[in-house]
Amino acid sequence: MFESAEIGHAVDKKTYKREEPLLREALLAAQYALLRQARTAVVVLVNGTPGAGKGETVNLFNEWMDPRHIRTEAFGAAGSDGRPDMWRFWQVLPPKGHIGILFGSWYVDPLTDAVTGLDTRDRFAHRLERIRQFERMLVAEGVVLVKLWFHLSKKAAKARFKRLESDPKTAWRVTTSEWDHLKHHDAWVLASEEALRRTGTGEAPWRVIEGADPAYRALTAGQLLLDALNTSLRAPPPVAPAAHPAAPPSPVLDEGSLLATQDYRRHIGRKRYDDQLEVLQGRLNGLSRRLAEQHRSLVLVFEGMDAAGKGSTIRRITQALDARHYRVVPVAAPNENERAQPYLWRFWRYIPHHGHVTVFDRSWYGRVLVERVEGYCSEADWMRAYGEINAFEEQLVEAGAVVVKFWLAITPEEQLRRFDERKNTAHKQYKITEDDWRNRAKWPLYAQAVGNMIDRSSTQVAPWHLVASDDKLWSRVEVLRTLCERLEAALG
Amino acid sequence: MFESAEIGHAVDKKTYKREEPLLREALLAAQYALLRQARTAVVVLVNGTPGAGKGETVNLFNEWMDPRHIRTEAFGAAGSDGRPDMWRFWQVLPPKGHIGILFGSWYVDPLTDAVTGLDTRDRFAHRLERIRQFERMLVAEGVVLVKLWFHLSKKAAKARFKRLESDPKTAWRVTTSEWDHLKHHDAWVLASEEALRRTGTGEAPWRVIEGADPAYRALTAGQLLLDALNTSLRAPPPVAPAAHPAAPPSPVLDEGSLLATQDYRRHIGRKRYDDQLEVLQGRLNGLSRRLAEQHRSLVLVFEGMDAAGKGSTIRRITQALDARHYRVVPVAAPNENERAQPYLWRFWRYIPHHGHVTVFDRSWYGRVLVERVEGYCSEADWMRAYGEINAFEEQLVEAGAVVVKFWLAITPEEQLRRFDERKNTAHKQYKITEDDWRNRAKWPLYAQAVGNMIDRSSTQVAPWHLVASDDKLWSRVEVLRTLCERLEAALG
Repeated sequence: MFESAEIGHAVDKKTYKREEPLLREALLAAQYALLRQARTAVVVLVNGTPGAGKGETVNLFNEWMDPRHIRTEAFGAAGSDGRPDMWRFWQVLPPKGHIGILFGSWYVDPLTDAVTGLDTRDRFAHRLERIRQFERMLVAEGVVLVKLWFHLSKKAAKARFKRLESDPKTAWRVTTSEWDHLKHHDAWVLASEEALRRTGTGEAPWRVIEGADPAYRALTAGQLLLDALNTSLRAPPPVAPAAHPAAPPSPVLDEGSLLATQDYRRHIGRKRYDDQLEVLQGRLNGLSRRLAEQHRSLVLVFEGMDAAGKGSTIRRITQALDARHYRVVPVAAPNENERAQPYLWRFWRYIPHHGHVTVFDRSWYGRVLVERVEGYCSEADWMRAYGEINAFEEQLVEAGAVVVKFWLAITPEEQLRRFDERKNTAHKQYKITEDDWRNRAKWPLYAQAVGNMIDRSSTQVAPWHLVASDDKLWSRVEVLRTLCERLEAALG
Repeated sequence: MFESAEIGHAVDKKTYKREEPLLREALLAAQYALLRQARTAVVVLVNGTPGAGKGETVNLFNEWMDPRHIRTEAFGAAGSDGRPDMWRFWQVLPPKGHIGILFGSWYVDPLTDAVTGLDTRDRFAHRLERIRQFERMLVAEGVVLVKLWFHLSKKAAKARFKRLESDPKTAWRVTTSEWDHLKHHDAWVLASEEALRRTGTGEAPWRVIEGADPAYRALTAGQLLLDALNTSLRAPPPVAPAAHPAAPPSPVLDEGSLLATQDYRRHIGRKRYDDQLEVLQGRLNGLSRRLAEQHRSLVLVFEGMDAAGKGSTIRRITQALDARHYRVVPVAAPNENERAQPYLWRFWRYIPHHGHVTVFDRSWYGRVLVERVEGYCSEADWMRAYGEINAFEEQLVEAGAVVVKFWLAITPEEQLRRFDERKNTAHKQYKITEDDWRNRAKWPLYAQAVGNMIDRSSTQVAPWHLVASDDKLWSRVEVLRTLCERLEAALG
């Protein structure tokens, strides 16, 4: 895979002087077209052997183009603040129209752990497959991935380090880490090749560049970026990702569903409610204090039809928590910044670190509920979302989060009663809008979407809890009790 | 994931009597439309808990539709004849227009190995990811995958086994294996859920069916198959698999390439050639006899421009082999049967078992050479092929094959000399056609395709060997020597 990056590719000075200004001009023009079109984001991954010119190339890209619309980020080994490994990369994804240069990127940790023997071969393969899925999702969301791998043969790397060391002006570029790397060159090449092999796909292929000659390296990297920009500018609007899309889920034959099997008559009296609430809130408070010491965090998801009682239930939970340790994220339609990113981006931002709690009042499940029902995304988009969401939650759990998801289930009759109450109560009128009535008219479509959602995303990793909520008091107690039980099971 | 398949879905007799003939008629009509259109193949995977009605459903499908165009295959645990695990599934893929029902399928072994603890969690995840890629490739090649999972709760399974046992007419259906399975029900559910979670994609989702009520189960399975058939009949012609396809590889800037760096002046005299050939053929014969005892096989790939000497080199190899143990597969344009299958299908057929040798005279690399250059497949098709081919070869190697790939490299001048010789020699004229001259005119396009092919598919698992072949004698000796060295390295 690296053979043809070891044959001594080179470009003479004259050629470089002739080509560089042309390339630069073309890159700048393409960058501005990208910005105007604002349809795709471009993510450039800069990886490869030490000494192969990665840093120099990143500098050149910033010189050649308008750096105000380029975001360059360098990544070393991950620290551990309790967020999933991918969290820091999500934070720096460029919005549509912009270019992000990731120096290091999500390949560094898996490669390091493979070379040092920290990961088994199967573990390494598994992490690479996860990257593959992540990149596939990015591409499906309109991100153009340019994966550059700068390569030097062992001999060329050694020669370069010696040359740099011999000149006082450049000696600082060579540290013990470079020489260390050289000692394990063969192991790195072996692992790198496996990474490139497993993650080089049709939609996001790797481009290997021989790093020995600066002129060849610079022009080649620039040309590859230009090709990617131009291809993305020409690309047709998003199309179905599969040659033969699967049939969407069909309605259940006997109309039986988990929602229909809930017992909506459950209720509790005010007195017992007050007593139990107090006990449960105390229990929850104690549990929440143990999150930090056990390096765990809590992600709470509340979903339900309009007027199901999400807000008031969440308040009963947060009353039991230390205000410094939780955050409630209300989720409405995405704003302009959020629409310029993959749909999961706005949720990744609020992933708690260890000891903290994030409560999502509606969530990423909007993709397979409102966006599906209202046609805000394509059928292919929401059909692939189940798998993407499961992979997302799996990452949260692996990083130590307890993920607890509630569907507050009410009957259409109870919803109508609450709507009418809101309409007729002055201080509640702000809570009811035309949208609520429109959504209500689509109840059967939403109910089907909820059924599919639970079938596809209620997992051992992150199960759904359906709570019959026609009686608000009973529902709140049930939610608190379930939450305490889940935390007790997780915290041991 | 299985929650809503444990709520007691059922359909009454009256409904069944009304719906069954309608469904049956619609299925038959769809089956014939599929056959007429002959654009997609349908593969139905039937998996799930024992006792959940898998066998009954398969029988019904065959009753409802025309069984002449359905191929039903049942799979137990894999034997080991030295071919990759997936080999037996490739053998039974239905051609376009037909339906294949796989009872068991590629999920059984990974699930069994996970539940029995033979595989680690990472190994299980890795195998599931491989299945995911395999299924993705099938879909991209025009196969419609219908993945049915029949589920019974532990309680329902127990009840069903007891009921079957109590009736002498059905007692045979329950063996110790069913009761054994029940003992480990929870472990099976856990592993199954992970399998469904990791392999349920937008283009090939799982459909979970509660298996307790025969009428509900039958109608639901039939309806799901009908939906899939109808969706595939309506589907638009294949489109690019990615929202934003990557830019194809661009020409190399300094025109440097591995092909250009070969030393084409290498040659050897007839006398030395004769001596070395004899020695090498003896060495190869000895090595080939050790394949069987070491449970290894040999896959040889020969590629090269027209008149590069593939045929005559292959003959020098087969002269050294026992005729009972090798097969030469000449690869030309695919025939009608082969065009009705994914492009790798015709090569899977000839994968050798342990102790055997298959020599491919041209190969699956046609996908990224002639099919790319001549436009026989789309850009998206050949761009995804590199990854698919690497995954294919990885499977061969893991099953014990030594994969040795040769590119016989000649210069355009030498090709012209050989073409002229063929033209002017009566007994060689059959070897030269108009096609050869047409291909020659596209030399630079082929050279670029060869460069990309080697960059993307020369791996530690299955490296390419470039052999300068302007001198046929030198080339043959070099091929034989390389082959012997690879075999010695592999056989220890």
